[in-house]
Amino acid sequence: MKKVAIVGAGQSRYGEFPEKGIKELFLEAYRDMLDSVDKGVDPSRIGAAYIGNLGSGGFQLGNMSALVSEFVGLPYVHTLRVENACASGGYAIVNAAMDVMSGAHDVVIAGGVEKMTDVSGVKQKYWLGVSGDTEYERLAGTTFAGLYALIAHRHMHEFGTTREQLSSVAVKNHANGALNPKAQFQREITLDKAMKSPYVARPLNLFDCCSTTDGASAVLICDADIASEFTDTPVHIRGFGTSSDYLAIHDRVSTVTLEGTKRAARAAYEMAGVTPTDIHAAEVHDCFTIAELLAYEDLGFCEKGEGGKFIEEGRSKIGGDKPVNASGGLKSKGHPIGSTGTGQAYEIFNQLRETVQKPSRQVKGAETGLIHNVGGSGGTVSVSILGR
Amino acid sequence: MKKVAIVGAGQSRYGEFPEKGIKELFLEAYRDMLDSVDKGVDPSRIGAAYIGNLGSGGFQLGNMSALVSEFVGLPYVHTLRVENACASGGYAIVNAAMDVMSGAHDVVIAGGVEKMTDVSGVKQKYWLGVSGDTEYERLAGTTFAGLYALIAHRHMHEFGTTREQLSSVAVKNHANGALNPKAQFQREITLDKAMKSPYVARPLNLFDCCSTTDGASAVLICDADIASEFTDTPVHIRGFGTSSDYLAIHDRVSTVTLEGTKRAARAAYEMAGVTPTDIHAAEVHDCFTIAELLAYEDLGFCEKGEGGKFIEEGRSKIGGDKPVNASGGLKSKGHPIGSTGTGQAYEIFNQLRETVQKPSRQVKGAETGLIHNVGGSGGTVSVSILGR
Repeated sequence: MKKVAIVGAGQSRYGEFPEKGIKELFLEAYRDMLDSVDKGVDPSRIGAAYIGNLGSGGFQLGNMSALVSEFVGLPYVHTLRVENACASGGYAIVNAAMDVMSGAHDVVIAGGVEKMTDVSGVKQKYWLGVSGDTEYERLAGTTFAGLYALIAHRHMHEFGTTREQLSSVAVKNHANGALNPKAQFQREITLDKAMKSPYVARPLNLFDCCSTTDGASAVLICDADIASEFTDTPVHIRGFGTSSDYLAIHDRVSTVTLEGTKRAARAAYEMAGVTPTDIHAAEVHDCFTIAELLAYEDLGFCEKGEGGKFIEEGRSKIGGDKPVNASGGLKSKGHPIGSTGTGQAYEIFNQLRETVQKPSRQVKGAETGLIHNVGGSGGTVSVSILGR
Repeated sequence: MKKVAIVGAGQSRYGEFPEKGIKELFLEAYRDMLDSVDKGVDPSRIGAAYIGNLGSGGFQLGNMSALVSEFVGLPYVHTLRVENACASGGYAIVNAAMDVMSGAHDVVIAGGVEKMTDVSGVKQKYWLGVSGDTEYERLAGTTFAGLYALIAHRHMHEFGTTREQLSSVAVKNHANGALNPKAQFQREITLDKAMKSPYVARPLNLFDCCSTTDGASAVLICDADIASEFTDTPVHIRGFGTSSDYLAIHDRVSTVTLEGTKRAARAAYEMAGVTPTDIHAAEVHDCFTIAELLAYEDLGFCEKGEGGKFIEEGRSKIGGDKPVNASGGLKSKGHPIGSTGTGQAYEIFNQLRETVQKPSRQVKGAETGLIHNVGGSGGTVSVSILGR
């Protein structure tokens, strides 16, 4: 099996940009990616571009992979829009890796882009809602915050997870995001402020929920045998795993476990030949604070039900034994849907190369990292393990 | 490089089915696919499902790959929705093949599904229009029929292509579709009727345009080394090629050539080690009659500008030296967008195994076939070469 490496990574600023569409956002990430390639890369070497995106077709543009590819100067590549709701970017990485492993192309892009803030509220709500189950959940009036609220309530009931533990996730991720010049929200929040914010869907309040974000990101992936043409410090994709799951929560094996995360992680660890204890830095899918607690558990960082204790003990802080979402996560860095997975890879790429923008955000000595990207309320999940 | 085989193929009836959604349509194709596997397949062997679809997210369901996968009984596979407008199915095949070639999975599905007839006219029009260029074409009022009308006019001007030649494509494809029990329109039309139908976008009239269709299809793809577990008569994917192009027609190298088709075909022929003369049966993307003439030329079946003569001489009829769209094509079989590419593979799979439903539709002795799937007005194109 061919080995695969990441030799460049770029990200646009995440935030609200009324002046930019998906083309401009993706170009910003693409240029940043090209600039990150130590020895440079001739764009004519790029044979394929996998672009994660949810919104196009919904209210913007179809055939968008070809559109953004031509816009950055790659008019004739194998380009493909991949969509698995919020996990689109994570799957773009996995399928870009498969492309290189297959021998079809030796240098490819995995990227993602989303334009979320410049659409009407009605459209936005409708469009996000459709990524969960429609027949049993959406048409019954449930939103994503509502679904994760159900999960959070059950988690509190079964394991004694507290509101304070949930808010602690938000506090940690905002502290990290304050150190990230590309994050949407670059400010710390206090535990008091997080706990007293208004409910969105009880028990989840405003600071338990990630935002809507414009943004893009891209990573340059190649056959590891030629990585030295581009850099002396590549990051390798050591393993990946994916799993879908039943969309409707009532169909699943458990309300407090994302079975997709467990299965995807198991496959990724096995392919990489590592265990959860080997992970030095992780970017996980904290669309809601409860989702980060589930991730700790389902990725094997702690036992089921101990996610609350894990955050409480500060283990997932930068400086803890298992730093999670040093970038600020979806909560503070932002969650431009199609870009989220490749944006996670951008962060881990820089963590492993010790090239994050501010030394205080650097996870010291990180050699192995993990990215975890969830679609909908767990209907699709991808996990990739990156290593120096 | 691993060799890849198709060992099963299924298709739903194409048409207008108010009682069926994408889940039911896909299930029909999936079951038909399972039934086609000579020695049977245990669904637990299936590791991945690539699902071509345009409309979801637009007005139906997000995370739809997971939804249709769970519905057919595959809740935990690597499932991915791929969207390149009308070429989505063709790209599903190419990426499914790459998956197997990479060693990630050894048995996978490439499928597609679209529900087009049960939405309001406004939504449908908007949604289809977005797959071309938005800024320069759609917002200026152009529809797809309008874009292909521009191409047709220029083709007539440069090469003397006639209205009768355009209508001859429709007549041929309806004659073929009349022999296809799964086609949307199973009736012949006369040249007189085709030529006298009302204009949609001059010079294209009603019978120059394909319809909107509900339908699904799926093919079972595996590592060729294990194909004999499933059948003694597999069909091999001998080559594939893809290319994107500028979305806006004014940006392209020519108005009367789909550069994407030329590039995708060149790559596919090279990978398969064949030339256009080796193709015994082809399913090409005849979304409009002019598109089939372009395909003859850009796939190398004849010289540029001679597409009109090619149809006039009857060369692309069943029984001609280069039968094209024996299934009825998009024109008569129907064009359920995400399913079109995998539906073409379903037809060629059966042509090469001599298992088409009616002997009169069989291309005698076909050993090598080609499928050609176009997204938008040529923004994305995939070509695959299949062989016994």
